[in-house]
Amino acid sequence: MPKVSDDHLAARRSQILDGARRCFAEFGYDGATVRLLEEATGLSRGAIFHHFRDKDALFLALAREDAARMAEVAATQGLVQVMRDMLAHPEQFDWLGTRLEIARRLRTDTEFRRNWEQRSEELTAATIARLEQRKSEGRLREDVPTDVLLGYLDLVLDGLIARIASGHVSENLSAVLDLVEASVRTQSPTLEN
Amino acid sequence: MPKVSDDHLAARRSQILDGARRCFAEFGYDGATVRLLEEATGLSRGAIFHHFRDKDALFLALAREDAARMAEVAATQGLVQVMRDMLAHPEQFDWLGTRLEIARRLRTDTEFRRNWEQRSEELTAATIARLEQRKSEGRLREDVPTDVLLGYLDLVLDGLIARIASGHVSENLSAVLDLVEASVRTQSPTLEN
Repeated sequence: MPKVSDDHLAARRSQILDGARRCFAEFGYDGATVRLLEEATGLSRGAIFHHFRDKDALFLALAREDAARMAEVAATQGLVQVMRDMLAHPEQFDWLGTRLEIARRLRTDTEFRRNWEQRSEELTAATIARLEQRKSEGRLREDVPTDVLLGYLDLVLDGLIARIASGHVSENLSAVLDLVEASVRTQSPTLEN
Repeated sequence: MPKVSDDHLAARRSQILDGARRCFAEFGYDGATVRLLEEATGLSRGAIFHHFRDKDALFLALAREDAARMAEVAATQGLVQVMRDMLAHPEQFDWLGTRLEIARRLRTDTEFRRNWEQRSEELTAATIARLEQRKSEGRLREDVPTDVLLGYLDLVLDGLIARIASGHVSENLSAVLDLVEASVRTQSPTLEN
């Protein structure tokens, strides 16, 4: 096998991930067979599984990509902004339906579940840091512990993912997110802006 | 065929629904084959499909049962209480995972989607009636339109369903629901109780 540069490896990896994302979005987790993954990535199964051990590894890598991108936005603009971005471009999140399909496995497959939870640690850390900072600035309500605020935003995010995955994005969701945002802010009107 | 009473028909129908609920919870929508449905209900496919046209019809009947039960609670105690009940007995909602698995079909199958949406009309109507009543009593915030409050509670409910379906019920969800409840209430402390 010829030596390949790191750049080449990274490009190949990203080619696989992009194709796999489209493939999962179209056919779902179970439906995305190795043959369909080959078609979507334009690569052989040998090449695909040289980079990713198996379909699970591919799936978790996609989930980590998403989480990293979301963490970037969450760190500077908060988790509600992450949700607003999803709402503005739901078509970019078609593959999220796959996340719903794996709910059963998350419940029953401990190893898979542990790997899945790892993927979101970065996003959780970014969100907590942002919440703590806003609290120290007096912009966030003080009467609710940070872990509850985090759990609240996470729950709404899960709801939004389910909504986008089922194509049920109603017009008033933007106003709903305003309400979500207001409900974690300092309640006294004099401190809001 | 012998004549059967309405009571007998209702009992048979309910036997099928109970078995199918367990079967969907254990094997998922796609995994619940006709053979497994026969085993779970203790009835032949002939008997099952005498009462329900096909697997879709069975699935939608279960969803309607749930919606009707939730509507009863929502009418008198509100949608947050529905969520508290789910949280108190997540094991009774195992089959909800199936709801997630059908997200793709909801997005792509118009006929199925229409039937699915009909199922929740009763729950939506009960929730709106409750919200309007609470508003007239001055217990609900006036600055947010009822449809946005409804959309908000629905979104949180979807999040909770996703959470229960994936077995990810964290300890602080009860406190999270307190926050949800508080955020739809009148914000002035003098009117709260």
